[in-house]
Amino acid sequence: MADGVERISSQDLSKLMNVTASQIRQDFNNFGGFGQQGYGYNVEYLYNEIGKILGLDQKHNFIIIGAGNLGRALGNYMNFERRGFLFKGMFDMNPDLIGMDVRGVTVMHTDELEKFIRENEIDIAVLTIPKTGAVAVAEKLVQYGIKAIWNFAHVDLKVPAGIQVENVHLSDSLMKLSYNLNRYNEEQNQ
Amino acid sequence: MADGVERISSQDLSKLMNVTASQIRQDFNNFGGFGQQGYGYNVEYLYNEIGKILGLDQKHNFIIIGAGNLGRALGNYMNFERRGFLFKGMFDMNPDLIGMDVRGVTVMHTDELEKFIRENEIDIAVLTIPKTGAVAVAEKLVQYGIKAIWNFAHVDLKVPAGIQVENVHLSDSLMKLSYNLNRYNEEQNQ
Repeated sequence: MADGVERISSQDLSKLMNVTASQIRQDFNNFGGFGQQGYGYNVEYLYNEIGKILGLDQKHNFIIIGAGNLGRALGNYMNFERRGFLFKGMFDMNPDLIGMDVRGVTVMHTDELEKFIRENEIDIAVLTIPKTGAVAVAEKLVQYGIKAIWNFAHVDLKVPAGIQVENVHLSDSLMKLSYNLNRYNEEQNQ
Repeated sequence: MADGVERISSQDLSKLMNVTASQIRQDFNNFGGFGQQGYGYNVEYLYNEIGKILGLDQKHNFIIIGAGNLGRALGNYMNFERRGFLFKGMFDMNPDLIGMDVRGVTVMHTDELEKFIRENEIDIAVLTIPKTGAVAVAEKLVQYGIKAIWNFAHVDLKVPAGIQVENVHLSDSLMKLSYNLNRYNEEQNQ
């Protein structure tokens, strides 16, 4: 859409996505299909419909726990807003970070979490704290009413059924890069 | 291994990984298998062998282009070292950031990239700059001898065959969280 493309075939999508065209058609059909056979897909319609499936037409308020570099990087990332994720609060225990401004949000002490979550309809908490402490913090967040956790701490959280957790392991993609790099080097040396 | 587990069955791995036990056995068999049927896998052996497949027994020097919050977060992340990824240099164009210390590495001007890459056997470049400029920077990096790019810029890079690129789209996992959250809410409301 950003490139001004109005219609796209499953073949062209396939090349962009490294997924077979038949897999793309099959996946789309699982959601009712988004086009007429042979005409390709209307890109804007596809964009909006997939957005609805992902729930991007709804607003979600989120807070970030941990005001270190990663927390601040995520807080400063404007694109989340465009997708309906509204950055409402940021918390830390480090007195040096409390009071700091991150894109209009003032870092608060974690003692204020409960009150803030209950008063501001916060759905999502982003955890960018070290793994020590993350499990205990997650338990409290759930107790205060958080429904989903985007977890950057390198530890498995224990949460009740119905609470959504999405773990981000940055190292995974670095290891994939390493694997491809080494495999390529080996092939070249053969 | 961190939990002191010495042997693990494909069934138990399956529960931890949300992948079927038969898929796990099949995947392991593709690499020659790592155990005897019925005895489970020796966890330490498995850890080391998978590490070798991923190339984690080899050292890779990396640099970070972009000394903003995300770049500094990645530079400060100690775990990469443990996996054989050595943080060697950091570059930016912003005069306010040049000279800053990030875990013993001094931020340099991007003008020094070529010399630094050629003199320090740098394999991997981590791109944490905005998407404007990222394509041009990636082209130069390849010209200077970079073999792999870990790309956090939200743009598709154009690199020659044989250069490994791993794109990190943080929003993807946030959208997955949103999807699961909305789907759960809908189920509860039915």
